[in-house]
Amino acid sequence: MSMTNPAPTSLSRVAENGALLKQDMSARARVIENAIDALLPPTTGGDARLIDAMRYATLGGGKRLRGYLAMTVASLFDVPASQSARTAASVEMLHAYSLVHDDLPAMDDDDMRRGQPSTHRKFDEATAILAGDALQTKAFEILASAQTHASADVRIDLISCFAEASGAAGMVGGQMIDMEGEGRALPLDEVRHLHALKTGCLIRYSAECGAILGQATPDLRKRLRSYGTSIGAAFQIADDILDTTATAEELGKTAGKDEASGKSTFVALLGIDGAQKEATRLTELAVAELEPFGARADRLRDLAYYVIERRN
Amino acid sequence: MSMTNPAPTSLSRVAENGALLKQDMSARARVIENAIDALLPPTTGGDARLIDAMRYATLGGGKRLRGYLAMTVASLFDVPASQSARTAASVEMLHAYSLVHDDLPAMDDDDMRRGQPSTHRKFDEATAILAGDALQTKAFEILASAQTHASADVRIDLISCFAEASGAAGMVGGQMIDMEGEGRALPLDEVRHLHALKTGCLIRYSAECGAILGQATPDLRKRLRSYGTSIGAAFQIADDILDTTATAEELGKTAGKDEASGKSTFVALLGIDGAQKEATRLTELAVAELEPFGARADRLRDLAYYVIERRN
Repeated sequence: MSMTNPAPTSLSRVAENGALLKQDMSARARVIENAIDALLPPTTGGDARLIDAMRYATLGGGKRLRGYLAMTVASLFDVPASQSARTAASVEMLHAYSLVHDDLPAMDDDDMRRGQPSTHRKFDEATAILAGDALQTKAFEILASAQTHASADVRIDLISCFAEASGAAGMVGGQMIDMEGEGRALPLDEVRHLHALKTGCLIRYSAECGAILGQATPDLRKRLRSYGTSIGAAFQIADDILDTTATAEELGKTAGKDEASGKSTFVALLGIDGAQKEATRLTELAVAELEPFGARADRLRDLAYYVIERRN
Repeated sequence: MSMTNPAPTSLSRVAENGALLKQDMSARARVIENAIDALLPPTTGGDARLIDAMRYATLGGGKRLRGYLAMTVASLFDVPASQSARTAASVEMLHAYSLVHDDLPAMDDDDMRRGQPSTHRKFDEATAILAGDALQTKAFEILASAQTHASADVRIDLISCFAEASGAAGMVGGQMIDMEGEGRALPLDEVRHLHALKTGCLIRYSAECGAILGQATPDLRKRLRSYGTSIGAAFQIADDILDTTATAEELGKTAGKDEASGKSTFVALLGIDGAQKEATRLTELAVAELEPFGARADRLRDLAYYVIERRN
């Protein structure tokens, strides 16, 4: 690992390095897309419709932020892309399952996702429920495979962290608190806690899984985990800001929905300026964790700034 | 393993050994219940409602057929109950998640389950969707834990088989085919295939996971897997027969529902006599696989007959 050229941490990075990041994200997104396509091949048998729905929910779009994090952190440790792409595909499938279920009428009742009909609108509710269920299973199945990593211990480590991040004490728990909190004003610490679970845990895992694949030392793993925690929190604040300021066309989904549904957001609690300050503070915390990696972590630095500067 | 006293395989076993089996199933059901209770402790935090729903869906009832299979097969190999009870709890959680999602209005739309309101009726649809999701995650998390087995290879083996049995190529795939087949007459081979996936795979896994925990030789594992496949198929035929002949009180759920919803059943295709003959044939196939285990497998023999003789 190169220790030379510790990178600057100012916001000017975004303009300087935005193009490099964009290029790198696109390249990795294609690799992840191909991995998902290969892991979920279309079929013609009785399961054709289920597989179609799973493919619809996971392929063809999205920034692949979680998968990009996994692959880019893993690359710090020279993990082959063939391994890290599988892990990235797994986390993207889990993310997709959560979106499919969140969009259901009984949940957030969203008709659109990434500018397309959401899965239950394209297919039907039963198919969307089952496709989400099977995507979660598939995500675990991929991690258990020897193709993901030769060492069973590493695979078990991935699966344990993944389950913790995505279950009742993580993503699903956060979604539940979010549903319960609708229509009443939550204090700032509860909003923080809810988002740390709902979106934060899986983004943190996405960074940490790269460190697990790379068999990082406990110290480096802890740093990458903290990096993930901070950008996960910044990501959600940026999302709240976007929901207020971006158009539906930019978002590819209904805008202003949080306010309409009475959800407590960072913007409602801190104002747009306050929310932006908080997001910047978290980004700088994230970037500080990357110090031992020197210039090799430049794309992860860029990503931290990108998370709060993006328009969709 | 004792090789003495190869047991008789006639239907007279049921009367002779029914009481012993019943006692053994009740004892193990209590152990499994306690394991689930310990693995899903109630909380008072923001996740209290989600955990409550997960506990509601998994605790307090059911025959624990899958968990019983797991523990009883594992006991052939002297696996400590503390390990096999965790594996049993895991498969029961997965089974429970599938029931919670199957009962949803968009799926089978069932208000009752085991004589109680189904989870979405007791809580609400969103909570039921999330509780099912989190139960699936928890089931994988338990298998990944070192408390389930000291060897990471054994845990990975469990997780791989579990994912295969429960995902798009297993239980969820079968549920999808079932939804798509509603209202039209399926030929016998399609009905067989659908049930092999929908209920058969998880029952097969329940037997196989005991063999995995016990680090069985490939031959014994294959036999226990076949045993599981056969009783899984017999179980579903018996279920179809029960749906026609049992009362709602006996079933703890709506009776005659298959016929009302236009589902293709073994009874519709083979008649009650034909279905009973087929179930008996499968049971005898299952029992034949137990030959190398001698008298130690008596409860598994009893179980094979119980599966087709039960009234609920």
